[in-house]
Amino acid sequence: MRDVAIIGIGMNKWGELWESRIRDLYVESALAAMDDAGVDHVDSMYVGCMSGGLFVGQEHIGALMADYLGQAPVPATRVESACASGGAAVRLGFMEVASGMSDIVLVGGVEKMTDVDGGGATYALATAADQEYEAFHGVTFPALYAMMARAHMAKFGTTREQLAQVAVKNHENGSKNPKAQFPFKVTLEQVINSTAVADPLCLLDCSPVTDGAAAIVLASVETAKRLGKHQIVKITGSGQASASIAYHSRRDLTFLSSTEKAAQAACKMAGCTPSDVDLFEVHDCFSIAEIMVIEALGLVEPGKGGPATMAGATAIGGEFPVNASGGLKAKGHPVGATGVAQVIELTEQLRGDAGARQVKNARKGLAQNMGGTGASATVHILEVE
Amino acid sequence: MRDVAIIGIGMNKWGELWESRIRDLYVESALAAMDDAGVDHVDSMYVGCMSGGLFVGQEHIGALMADYLGQAPVPATRVESACASGGAAVRLGFMEVASGMSDIVLVGGVEKMTDVDGGGATYALATAADQEYEAFHGVTFPALYAMMARAHMAKFGTTREQLAQVAVKNHENGSKNPKAQFPFKVTLEQVINSTAVADPLCLLDCSPVTDGAAAIVLASVETAKRLGKHQIVKITGSGQASASIAYHSRRDLTFLSSTEKAAQAACKMAGCTPSDVDLFEVHDCFSIAEIMVIEALGLVEPGKGGPATMAGATAIGGEFPVNASGGLKAKGHPVGATGVAQVIELTEQLRGDAGARQVKNARKGLAQNMGGTGASATVHILEVE
Repeated sequence: MRDVAIIGIGMNKWGELWESRIRDLYVESALAAMDDAGVDHVDSMYVGCMSGGLFVGQEHIGALMADYLGQAPVPATRVESACASGGAAVRLGFMEVASGMSDIVLVGGVEKMTDVDGGGATYALATAADQEYEAFHGVTFPALYAMMARAHMAKFGTTREQLAQVAVKNHENGSKNPKAQFPFKVTLEQVINSTAVADPLCLLDCSPVTDGAAAIVLASVETAKRLGKHQIVKITGSGQASASIAYHSRRDLTFLSSTEKAAQAACKMAGCTPSDVDLFEVHDCFSIAEIMVIEALGLVEPGKGGPATMAGATAIGGEFPVNASGGLKAKGHPVGATGVAQVIELTEQLRGDAGARQVKNARKGLAQNMGGTGASATVHILEVE
Repeated sequence: MRDVAIIGIGMNKWGELWESRIRDLYVESALAAMDDAGVDHVDSMYVGCMSGGLFVGQEHIGALMADYLGQAPVPATRVESACASGGAAVRLGFMEVASGMSDIVLVGGVEKMTDVDGGGATYALATAADQEYEAFHGVTFPALYAMMARAHMAKFGTTREQLAQVAVKNHENGSKNPKAQFPFKVTLEQVINSTAVADPLCLLDCSPVTDGAAAIVLASVETAKRLGKHQIVKITGSGQASASIAYHSRRDLTFLSSTEKAAQAACKMAGCTPSDVDLFEVHDCFSIAEIMVIEALGLVEPGKGGPATMAGATAIGGEFPVNASGGLKAKGHPVGATGVAQVIELTEQLRGDAGARQVKNARKGLAQNMGGTGASATVHILEVE
């Protein structure tokens, strides 16, 4: 397996984009990535998308996007692992270049979530849970994560304020991200007093419903050097893992085992540990999720995620900055695109192009993307040469 | 890239299986494949599935199946390319073993199509077409293929009888396949006089709506030899291509360009031409499709697919046997599983285990799987050592 570089990145401004179709979102982002890379042709494509079928009545997303991007007849495959669809697509693109099967691979992610009503979006997202044992009975994702939050609070004494601080910190970061859906700051009081969704989670603990896309171009390091447009940012580790999908099969509701295992695999490949990493983009679909992810990554002991967040460890300038982009919370969460956008943020940071949200001396980054309530997770490690 | 062998195969009997859930179909087939391989653990999984969301309200299919198969925490990714989802999954499993990233990979395909009413299945399948320019206006897959058939008849003089002969031949073969949904013979008169669906296509020109799954275990040739359970059947070529999704963008309605390009790529990798191949499993979702596929593969000149079929060239014992399994027509077409089942049939044939439908001296087989009306296609070439 040979080294793989990220040679181009692109994403549209995320939000409620009623004037754009799913293909428009994708093509805008993919063209930006190809322009950033300086290529007008790719050898192969992967498109992460959770539910084109339920959100916009469109499957066959890979071929559709290859066609509208003007890249047909290249191979184009849609990849799905619920909200980790983007991360799974990154992994396949990495594998295809690393194997030598292709030299230049376009990895995109896209979701058009606002063309259904609120109930439609909630139903579509709930298909990431176990339909027969969970979703069918009416449980929704805010409810599932609220159960995790309650369990975490009961076991470790995690507080309402600690949960809210995740949102405060991510909106602080997101206020500096021009691509973010909600680029504004919020206070602890605003989060805690926002509309209740599923106790203890309020509206501002939840990532939003978003239309958006993200794309990266991967290539061999030789090709990256030949093109010579950017500093070489490499993917040095890729890990993926699964876990029980339904809660009733889990040993522990407060620990994300798939994230731990995916991180171990990625770190083994990269020859590092999470403590060697300078910054993290993680899956904060709900405030409790970010706390549990930093625990699963081993950045803090189980139960210490809340206090560490409150103490500023995860802020830009903190001990281990998390979600400098604003995270899913402020940047938005078009589910199939999120895992790709995490890699874009890390690439901008490692290139030193992150502007007002730049993490100083960023040399190594880790992206963690998660499907459902953690039944799947992907982790990628990026390093600048 | 190293050599890849098929070390295990498994599929359930296909049909209208109202007593089985999607996970049951998958697990039954996957366990059969693992048993055939003699392994109780795999390193990674790919699951081809077109629309778990629209058919059964379940996305996150990869993680779900890993969980219910007892293989979590292995990486598990769902792959979609409409009706070529299975072929796309085979390609990714092949790539993962060939790259050395994993040693043993389980590739499955599954679709549970009968838990919606007829209109629901027609809607779900139509999402493989361009939703905005085709499906939205009410066009269905029988209608789309009927347009291809009419264009082919107008351009080349293909006859109604030639179309019907595809179904007659495939039901003849399928009558010898115990796993087939419709294991019985039909006559030319029965096909032509069956209920009209979309002129010129009648009910018996159309593949059915099916519940089913199929799974194969891939491994390095070294591992295959160590396990030593079967003759070594290798995947020696893999090709995939895309094409315009909507008809209005195509130069020629009568030619399947993605199949041609995928076959060229697979043959280049395998170092052969389609004329070197002993038997073919191809995507006969409608009778016209098989005729167009053998033309796109270059087995006959464009326009000669109908006469060749009528002359018996594609029958078992003919010049180039096509769909000895019974094809999608008689075996059934659970869309995400079809591409994997094609590889199973070829493996059985190459092992010499195909019983009453055995193609004599089968050493090399080709599987062609197609998404939508040909916006995507995969081709794999298998050889027995």
